[in-house]
Amino acid sequence: MIVLGVDPGTVRTGYGVVERPEAGPYRLVECGVIRPPAASALALKLDVIFTELETLIARHHPDALAVENVFMASNARSALVLGHARGVILLAGARAGVAVAEYAPREVKSAVVGAGSATKVQIQRMVMRLLRLKSAPEPTDAADGVAIALTHCMRSRTFKRAVVG
Amino acid sequence: MIVLGVDPGTVRTGYGVVERPEAGPYRLVECGVIRPPAASALALKLDVIFTELETLIARHHPDALAVENVFMASNARSALVLGHARGVILLAGARAGVAVAEYAPREVKSAVVGAGSATKVQIQRMVMRLLRLKSAPEPTDAADGVAIALTHCMRSRTFKRAVVG
Repeated sequence: MIVLGVDPGTVRTGYGVVERPEAGPYRLVECGVIRPPAASALALKLDVIFTELETLIARHHPDALAVENVFMASNARSALVLGHARGVILLAGARAGVAVAEYAPREVKSAVVGAGSATKVQIQRMVMRLLRLKSAPEPTDAADGVAIALTHCMRSRTFKRAVVG
Repeated sequence: MIVLGVDPGTVRTGYGVVERPEAGPYRLVECGVIRPPAASALALKLDVIFTELETLIARHHPDALAVENVFMASNARSALVLGHARGVILLAGARAGVAVAEYAPREVKSAVVGAGSATKVQIQRMVMRLLRLKSAPEPTDAADGVAIALTHCMRSRTFKRAVVG
């Protein structure tokens, strides 16, 4: 199973591609950050994000797209702008026929670290351990995308076990 | 000049296509409402909105896409959801190479009626008069899309005159 995890934003959209093999540890396939040109109009920024997502999906054929689900924006205006980025990310998944899963930040922390109040540093350490990395994925936004992908890997494993057992 | 005006929403997205000829009155080409299936997942609703916008752009080859710019959502959550719809609408414009213009609700009222505090009924009456219609475009969301398209027609005319004069 291959999962593309995305941490949306119009300035920086972090992503991580994680493989969950039939047996053995999770594997980090790729991670990075999409940074649309700061001076571009919003519509063009969204085009950059959408096109990069399409390219990632075409390259890795993920079984699922996992996206952070933030309802905690500081105000309506920043929520609106964030919604634009999430909109084109969900669209990229829908158009490619990839299942879309959404996770709240607390769920990501809880799944990866075991505590909904975990710090960024705690998440990075667990991401390193789970993926057997020598250093945390850089920059932070990429690490967030990886954590979301890991969350989906772990949650769907739990689900499968629950169904089987 | 042909303008596609859009009033975004995940439940109902109203649109209107208005032609501004070189001479003579504005002309309503088409208007309607995009209603994604209520039971669908958000990603699929966004796909419906995006695909319909793509179809409208392919059919009418608008010179501009005019979108309502709402920063007045009642709370962060509704702003976020509205942002998703606006995101895929702006994306449809960007990908088709259509210029995107954004107007605040007050600008639309001010352009169409001449008062930023105009009521819905006042807007509908002026839309009917400007487009020489026997009745207001139905339903209301379609009329809102038409008003936004008209706003762009009128604003860009003012702009042109200002440049020439």
